[in-house]
Amino acid sequence: MTRWKLVLEYDGGAFVGWQRQNNGPSVQQALEEAIHRLSGERAEVQGAGRTDSGVHATGQVAHFDLDKAFEADTVRDALNAHLRAEAVAVLSAEPVAEDFHARFSATGRAYLYRIVNRRPPLVLEAGRAWWAPVPLDAAAMAAGAKHLRGKHDFTSFRASECQANSPVKTLDHLMVTRRGEHIEIEARARSFLHHQVRNIVGTLKLVGQGKWLPEDVRHALAARDRRAAGPTAPADGLYLTEVTYD
Amino acid sequence: MTRWKLVLEYDGGAFVGWQRQNNGPSVQQALEEAIHRLSGERAEVQGAGRTDSGVHATGQVAHFDLDKAFEADTVRDALNAHLRAEAVAVLSAEPVAEDFHARFSATGRAYLYRIVNRRPPLVLEAGRAWWAPVPLDAAAMAAGAKHLRGKHDFTSFRASECQANSPVKTLDHLMVTRRGEHIEIEARARSFLHHQVRNIVGTLKLVGQGKWLPEDVRHALAARDRRAAGPTAPADGLYLTEVTYD
Repeated sequence: MTRWKLVLEYDGGAFVGWQRQNNGPSVQQALEEAIHRLSGERAEVQGAGRTDSGVHATGQVAHFDLDKAFEADTVRDALNAHLRAEAVAVLSAEPVAEDFHARFSATGRAYLYRIVNRRPPLVLEAGRAWWAPVPLDAAAMAAGAKHLRGKHDFTSFRASECQANSPVKTLDHLMVTRRGEHIEIEARARSFLHHQVRNIVGTLKLVGQGKWLPEDVRHALAARDRRAAGPTAPADGLYLTEVTYD
Repeated sequence: MTRWKLVLEYDGGAFVGWQRQNNGPSVQQALEEAIHRLSGERAEVQGAGRTDSGVHATGQVAHFDLDKAFEADTVRDALNAHLRAEAVAVLSAEPVAEDFHARFSATGRAYLYRIVNRRPPLVLEAGRAWWAPVPLDAAAMAAGAKHLRGKHDFTSFRASECQANSPVKTLDHLMVTRRGEHIEIEARARSFLHHQVRNIVGTLKLVGQGKWLPEDVRHALAARDRRAAGPTAPADGLYLTEVTYD
């Protein structure tokens, strides 16, 4: 048996999410079917993060086991050939130790959230970024973000359906940068709560619009109440960019 | 009467091209219908460049005339509202002098050609860049591009259906740069021949693959024969990024 690690890119808009569901195509199902066509085996694919519908990935990691032996290049190229009709690509495939687990071995995850801040609607970026037609002050958003870096109880930024054992997470990195009409928010942590990044972005946008002061983010965090923070930003702007392992 | 200048973004993959045709939706037709819904007037829209099907724009310029008076913000926002179902957006609208002509007053045009050079197929960039799975040497492509800068007879890079009076054009700028797996080719000239940028890119790719030496580009140019240069690069990777006026 060989355990395989994949790095994946996908367009979240084409799927109901990472996880296999009855209501539409999932990334997991697309991969499991491609693996079956490659090998004849029915492998279960485990992802590092269960991205929601609409959330994109440029660096999702997954693992699965195969009895048959393959070259790494063959696994990557053959899966891509079988995935030709799907909005998912295998960026790399490599054999790993049998105790490697895409989700439980992960020591860090990185997300990018993209906002396009301009009055005209999005065309080339439609479905790939959050359209914000009202001018946003990215420097104020960056000042608000400072209050969220480090180890905190993130209950205010946690979806009600979140299944994590604890609302305490450590945000190692949270940066807001503007390049022209593009505002990018990068977040890194060992792990995230459900909707944590999207709830942070929805809150920082209130700061960017001037509805909130940067300090209000600290008060929202301290409240430990989802109603104290801002709305959930849309899935379209979110990208799982990297999963790291020791 | 007011003459209006528009700056436009569009997804070329959604249209048969800039120009109104019988075989499918054109950018020109989408704009003319939106203008009619805004004003009740039947204006003809003139574009700076007649982009082919699949060619994108982030800075196409067009003009048209309206008898009724409007605020500039109204023209931009109302056209965008009427274009909501179309893959085109008005980035700006401004009244201009009555002798302004989007095409004939233009003194410069800039194009960007995007190649993604990686083995896995494109997902998030599908239809937005040329997928080149074989490793390309961008430095060699840049060396090849040098031979094309300046004033030359570009017959070797001209489509047979090109309607320009002369094959002599001056390429003010032609740069090849790599950032990671992305190779970008930027070209600037007063005007271009039909397919000139795509034929240049198709030729430079031969250099990038090592099939041609950089000097072979000079020989292809000197031949003044379309058959001496490389194939036409696909439309998907090409963007009309800017049109300049004095």
